[in-house]
Parts: sequence; structure tokens; C-alpha cells
Amino acid sequence: MGTDRAPSEDVRGAIDALQEMKSRGRNFTLILVGDQAAIEKELAKFPAADRSRITIANATEVIAMDDEPAQAVRSKRDSSIVRGLTLHREGEADAFVSAGNTGAVMAASTFILGRIPGIARPTIASQFPAANGYTLVADVGANVDTKPRNLYEFAVMTSVYAESIFGYQRPTVGLLNVGEEEGKGEERAVQSYALLKASNLNFVGNVEGRDILKGTVRVVVCDGFTGNIILKFAESVPGLLRTKLTNYANSGLLQKLMMGLSKGVLKGVFREMDYQEYGGVPLLGVNGVSIIGHGGSTAKAIKNMIFKAEEMVRKEVNQKIAAAIGNAAK
Amino acid sequence: MGTDRAPSEDVRGAIDALQEMKSRGRNFTLILVGDQAAIEKELAKFPAADRSRITIANATEVIAMDDEPAQAVRSKRDSSIVRGLTLHREGEADAFVSAGNTGAVMAASTFILGRIPGIARPTIASQFPAANGYTLVADVGANVDTKPRNLYEFAVMTSVYAESIFGYQRPTVGLLNVGEEEGKGEERAVQSYALLKASNLNFVGNVEGRDILKGTVRVVVCDGFTGNIILKFAESVPGLLRTKLTNYANSGLLQKLMMGLSKGVLKGVFREMDYQEYGGVPLLGVNGVSIIGHGGSTAKAIKNMIFKAEEMVRKEVNQKIAAAIGNAAK
Repeated sequence: MGTDRAPSEDVRGAIDALQEMKSRGRNFTLILVGDQAAIEKELAKFPAADRSRITIANATEVIAMDDEPAQAVRSKRDSSIVRGLTLHREGEADAFVSAGNTGAVMAASTFILGRIPGIARPTIASQFPAANGYTLVADVGANVDTKPRNLYEFAVMTSVYAESIFGYQRPTVGLLNVGEEEGKGEERAVQSYALLKASNLNFVGNVEGRDILKGTVRVVVCDGFTGNIILKFAESVPGLLRTKLTNYANSGLLQKLMMGLSKGVLKGVFREMDYQEYGGVPLLGVNGVSIIGHGGSTAKAIKNMIFKAEEMVRKEVNQKIAAAIGNAAK
Repeated sequence: MGTDRAPSEDVRGAIDALQEMKSRGRNFTLILVGDQAAIEKELAKFPAADRSRITIANATEVIAMDDEPAQAVRSKRDSSIVRGLTLHREGEADAFVSAGNTGAVMAASTFILGRIPGIARPTIASQFPAANGYTLVADVGANVDTKPRNLYEFAVMTSVYAESIFGYQRPTVGLLNVGEEEGKGEERAVQSYALLKASNLNFVGNVEGRDILKGTVRVVVCDGFTGNIILKFAESVPGLLRTKLTNYANSGLLQKLMMGLSKGVLKGVFREMDYQEYGGVPLLGVNGVSIIGHGGSTAKAIKNMIFKAEEMVRKEVNQKIAAAIGNAAK
């Protein structure tokens, strides 16, 4: 029930995931959590769907986008978010995917699933396009008032994620700061540097804002305040470019023609910056798999979120995090 | 002596500024501060330059890009930065422009020029392209460990700057945060919100990372740590787009052709994101006019920095800041 057009995009994305995965010879079972009647109505649009692999868990409440997260999780016990995560905790599901209220998914995931032993604060790691692949940035919004110990945990979890899911062997880790030299930045940055340097992570030192897109390192850690602002800034870049390009096209007939010719070029470039392509981001550090997506997610984004959830389970990312957090300190 | 190719880009930019300003019937006098012999050699390349409007102030030292700012300012008393700012303080010059070590220019400007009464911390305000003009963001790097009172001062100074130089009447002010609701974010954000709300600025509340390029407000205030990271991130966007476009062009003959056709379109869009166009950023709050540019500045950037300095003096931005800081609290 998470997307702005729930449950239509959500259901279609789930069916697409099921069918595409089947064609790769890899099957799974879907539990669609939410308003049973509304979900049935959507499902009826896909007569070819393999109903033997789909069940519906009825949930009578919905946590709205503007609900206060912690309060909503406590009071709406029969919401699709709380119900879905409870099914995951009880072992009925191996992973949970939602495009609903981000704060509520984070709060409910942490509260219901609990944390991986050794992790004080879960984190959201997001991928940014870089010259040579992707840069993983954490935290992008799970935490405010981050402490150095939390930044160290983010680095451990995101390194495991980068290696398991993106295939980056022993990924390089940088601390986001206002200069490269040790000793730069706020007190928090200075203390975090020391913790990261003393760990057995592949820590290369401070990196700056420009290093994210350059791909200087594979993993960038920062406090959740800065990370969230950078993520939202980055997501707004294609919008500005589109506006400027439209203004250009509207400035004359020749410009309109040129713009028409350029469309294919630009589409390819924008695609990598588009969150619909990678779908969602994992909440790392909870004792389960919880994938969080935008409210504006399309069916394609939902499908990609489900693929990510399946991959997180199959590659045992949480088991690797649990091992790494025990090992990462020298 | 500031740019990476000093003094050639610096001198050429200064000469270009002098000539272009003359053609608009607005004259000024240049003092070129630095290695006299090297500057003379560059000047000889411009026989048509009006030498009656150019003097050279010899400075035997140079603060390097990797010098520790505060220490360099103390020890290199005959550097071009210290000499130039001293000429400004003594009234020999009305403004100072440098593409040298940013930290050193900030430290020397604050130390030598002093601060405008009522301002505890100077700030750097930078312009970001937006859908409807520009968004001014401060602080983008003059301060770490920013306090709520500092953020309030940044808002006052940047509002004056936005109104005087960009012509935005009673500019809207937003506080950069991780959500729109009052009470969001770190403790610093919550306290800053209260201070801004109680002022007579045109404060509209919290804004998010995406609002900078959207142009939701004209002035965005944030701590210098976050602002510096956003600025450097934004400056790296055109580089990533160029890399991706080059990869696209190299993927086939048709792609190369399409890319060739698209060049004009893309050039126009990238130009607005290019700091060479606006040149430099003012250090607001010091008792004088100090414009700071990139080490990679071209002659064009230097020229635009000089234009900005002239405009700051002509429009009496500092006098307006002094009046506003006395008035801004209700």
C-alpha cells in the first residue's frame, strides 16, 4: 500500500518481479500485504499470473505519508507496514519491501525486527552513479545526531553491502569531510577519522563532496543529516537539467529541432540518475531484510526493489554484516 | 598570484575586466599584487592596455594551495594575499580579489579587514542555478562547528546580498534540513529554526536538499560543513555528465554523430553550472570586499570576480549588511 498510486503500481511491480524471476529459473512466493479487496481487484488484471505463488495478507490500516512515524507504528497495529514486518519476523516471509512512509518503515523495521548484534544504529545506504560504477553513501537519512561509533558501523555495513551486492572486493572507504587532510572538519569528523583509521576496513581517509560522483572511493560514510541532504540534492539534478533543456527547446525552432535530436543521448545519461532503475535502498543493520522505496515508485521500481530483497537474502548480507562487525575492529 | 597558472590568467582577466568596464563607461584602477617581474612580463603581452590605470605592488612571497591557512597568513607577511588585503584596509584599494588558497584568503580577510559590527562569523555565499534564476546558499565553507546564532547571521547577510546583487526583493529564506516540519533535524537545526522564525527576515521554514535547484526559496542557510559538501558535490555534476556523454559517444558511430549534434544544447545547460561564468564568491561579513575564486579560475573567471567586487562596492552591500544586522532581530 506504499506508492502514491497504491496498490496498482505495487501489485503490477510484484507480478512483474515474479514473472521475470521465473524466466530466470529462480522462483519465490509473494505475500501482498494490504487492503484485500483492492489487491484482489488489481490482481484480476493479471490473469496469467501464477496464483499458486501469491497470497494476500489483509491489513485494514494504512500509515500515510504525513503520519508521524514512531506514533503511527505504535498506533496502527494493523497497517500494511506493521503486518508485513511482523510476517517477516515470524519467518512467514524472508524479506520485506515497501514504498511507504520512509520514517515509519525505518522505525517499524528496527522495532519489529530488532538489530543485528553489535549494531547500535541501522543505516540507509544509497547508490550514486560515478565515473566508474557506483559510489555507496551511508547514512542518507536513517539517523540524526550521528556519533563517531555510528559512522564506523555504517562503514562496516556498507562495505559488506558493496562487496556482496556490487561485487567491489575489499571496497575503499572514505569519510565525507570538508578537506582531505586528517584533522579537518567538525569534532565528530575528527573522532570518526580516528575510529575508521584504527579499524581493519579499507579506509583511505577523508573525501570531499566532489569525490562521490568522481568515484574516488566505493563507500562514503557521513552523518545522516548531511547524507540525506546530498541524496535529495542529487535526486533533483535531472529535474533541473530537464527544465533548462525545455527552456532551450522553447527558445526557437532550430533549438527545438536540436533538442529533438539530442533526446536519445540525454535519456541514456539521465537513466543512471533515476531511482526507478535501482528501485529502493536497504535498511542495513536490522535483523532482517527491509527495502525502502520512494512514494513515487513505479511498477519498475517496485520490481527492482523485490530483486534487491531477493539478492540480499540469497547473498546472506546480514550474516556477513554480523561477522564483519565482530571482526572489523583490529 | 592565485590561479594554478598565475600570473598569466590573473593578469589577462584583470586587463579584460578593465577594458570591458571602460567600454561601459565605468572606469577603475587596478593594483596587481605579486611578483613584479612576472607580472611585468605578462603585462607586456597587452600593449593596448591602459597603463595609466594599472599599478603593480610587489610581493615577494606566495601562499601555496597546500599551506596551512592560519599559519601561512601569520608567517608570510609579504605574500600577495596579505599585501593585497593590507592595501585594501589602508584605503589604497576598495576591494580585493584572489583565486589563491581559500582558507588563507578567508583567514587573512577576517584578520586584516576585521568584521562588520554585529557579525561574529563571516560567511561564503555561493550561487546555485535554479529553475527560476539562482538560489544563494550560505555557508559553503567558511565555518565548521556553526552555531544557531551564526546561521542567523548568514541568513541576514545572504538576504542583503541576494537583494542587492541579484535583485531579489525581500528574498525568501529557508533553513536546510532533513524534513519540512518544524522540529526536524539535529538540535542545531531546531534552535536555528526558532531564531530565524523570531527574526524579521522573510523566513519560510525548513527546506530540503532538493529545494536548492528547484528554487523553492532564494536564500538557503546551512552549517559550513554541509554547505561545503553540497557545493563541491554540485560542482562535480557537469564532470560526471561529460564522462557519461563521452562514454555514450564512444559506444558507436551513430552515437558519436548524435553526440556531435547535441553539443550545442548541452553547452548551454552546462554553462549555468560552471563557476567560470560567475567567477567567485564574496566573503560576507568582513569589513571590506573580498572575493574568493577557484585555483582553477580562467581569465574569464578572474574578470567576473573583478566585476563582482566592483558591484559589491558600488551597491554598498556592506553598509546594507551593517544596517540589517542591527534591524533583523524583531
